[in-house]
Amino acid sequence: MVLRITFLGTSGTIPTVNRNPSAILINFKGERILFDCGEGTQRQMMKAKTGFRKLNRIFITHFHTDHYLGLFGLLETMSLQDRSEAIHIFGPEGISELIHVFRRLGYTNMGYPIHVHELKEGDTVEGDGYKVICCRAEHNIPCNAYAFIENDRPGKFNRKKAEKLGIPPGPLFKKLQMGEPVEINGKIIHPEEVVGNRRRGRKVVYSGDTRPSQKIVELAKDADLLIHEACFTEDLKEWAVETYHSTAKEAGEIARRSKVKRLILTHISPRYDNGEALIIEAEKEFSNVDIASDFMTIEIQYPD
Amino acid sequence: MVLRITFLGTSGTIPTVNRNPSAILINFKGERILFDCGEGTQRQMMKAKTGFRKLNRIFITHFHTDHYLGLFGLLETMSLQDRSEAIHIFGPEGISELIHVFRRLGYTNMGYPIHVHELKEGDTVEGDGYKVICCRAEHNIPCNAYAFIENDRPGKFNRKKAEKLGIPPGPLFKKLQMGEPVEINGKIIHPEEVVGNRRRGRKVVYSGDTRPSQKIVELAKDADLLIHEACFTEDLKEWAVETYHSTAKEAGEIARRSKVKRLILTHISPRYDNGEALIIEAEKEFSNVDIASDFMTIEIQYPD
Repeated sequence: MVLRITFLGTSGTIPTVNRNPSAILINFKGERILFDCGEGTQRQMMKAKTGFRKLNRIFITHFHTDHYLGLFGLLETMSLQDRSEAIHIFGPEGISELIHVFRRLGYTNMGYPIHVHELKEGDTVEGDGYKVICCRAEHNIPCNAYAFIENDRPGKFNRKKAEKLGIPPGPLFKKLQMGEPVEINGKIIHPEEVVGNRRRGRKVVYSGDTRPSQKIVELAKDADLLIHEACFTEDLKEWAVETYHSTAKEAGEIARRSKVKRLILTHISPRYDNGEALIIEAEKEFSNVDIASDFMTIEIQYPD
Repeated sequence: MVLRITFLGTSGTIPTVNRNPSAILINFKGERILFDCGEGTQRQMMKAKTGFRKLNRIFITHFHTDHYLGLFGLLETMSLQDRSEAIHIFGPEGISELIHVFRRLGYTNMGYPIHVHELKEGDTVEGDGYKVICCRAEHNIPCNAYAFIENDRPGKFNRKKAEKLGIPPGPLFKKLQMGEPVEINGKIIHPEEVVGNRRRGRKVVYSGDTRPSQKIVELAKDADLLIHEACFTEDLKEWAVETYHSTAKEAGEIARRSKVKRLILTHISPRYDNGEALIIEAEKEFSNVDIASDFMTIEIQYPD
């Protein structure tokens, strides 16, 4: 089942000609889930041809303009496109008031229900085949980090062994794989005889804006992909501390400590041009590092 | 003196891959004056290389998202770029609350003063060498149209006649041109003897979103350029009436009735692709019509 990440905006606080403000779209089995929605995200979605119809959930990390301003235009456009399905918007405390005020001042009458949910540390949102877990990042205003976690998958089915046990291919295979025992020639076969241990689903974690955080290490444990901000290099660490951001080296440390498979750096300042300096620094801590760019797409494969 | 119009956003309510939401930048003698600031305007300014430093005044027509959302990101970016000069923001009633709420919810601490002014019908804003006059457009929420009017210029100096009268070229020429009499060989020469009538300055009018409006005809009288919305063609007039927008034909009528020199249609729906259908329709009413496109630049010349 597809799990595709599209980077719609990868700039630092100030956008550039090449980078739009923060937005990351997950396509999971066709459902679109958006993390952050910086100014201009709807147009980035048009350019990336992601469509709007299947977007049902939007998770905002915090209310600095580069992470949420595009929300209002996107909601408006979906209304003008005759959307009728509800949308769910998640974010830290304040998101309800923000959306309420926007709708009142903009005289906005949306054609579909908008459900707003304030998320705090440890909250979990259940989706169709996945969940999103929230932890609090370490920023200078309330900011959430999010983990997208696919549900566990059934264990591997040992077809050879099943055939040896006399089970005919077909519905009984399926039954065993779903965890139910079957009877064949008067003998009960238990699923664990032919099905391996359940396999964990894929996991993608997005840090939001943050100082390096033990909570994010825990949230990102064994993730297939950690998308971590890297606003600065080590020579500007003082500035990173002051503004509650991370250096590329610190992002690498977080990736190493949480034992993720892959690290992609985002929230890229124009200081770093193509990001080479950020990669070099993060690679001192963690080997599998890339830098995000607008419209970059990553397919997350099953590890086994 | 330069009077240059740069179209930064020319889309209808929903942006497209090729058109950003509404924004029009005037460069008058180096000062930048922005009319509307749709989502993504700051990035359009970066792409158009207009700079931010010399932007001192922003006029918003109304609070539909496609006309103002980009304001907050732009204000934030200018603060992060260490701006210290004040900025003045003008709009219909509600703009003060809108900006107040945005700053509170966004925990935003701007590094420069923001002066917000609510403008009503007939209000005039005086600038350096120009004024902006506001009238109320006919939209479904409070919406202003704006006329940018350059100050009158001195009349033409009749150099030949001045020399004939025995005035030596130099400071006395200047004095006469500024409207002061001079004495030469005991004889008083009055300015009206060598200087023609004062000449009117250049004038650019922006309709905002509106049904065809007599007030806008008056506001736009004899303008060098009328930028008028044209959301629809005549076959969709019912829809135009319902949503308080104009057809291209109606925009052409307004241009004809106000005797402007040139009409540029904007707020272009993706229905009209390159806008050919809109031009054909408007040309039935008025001959000098163009369609706006993002990054299109127009220099307004002195008429005489």
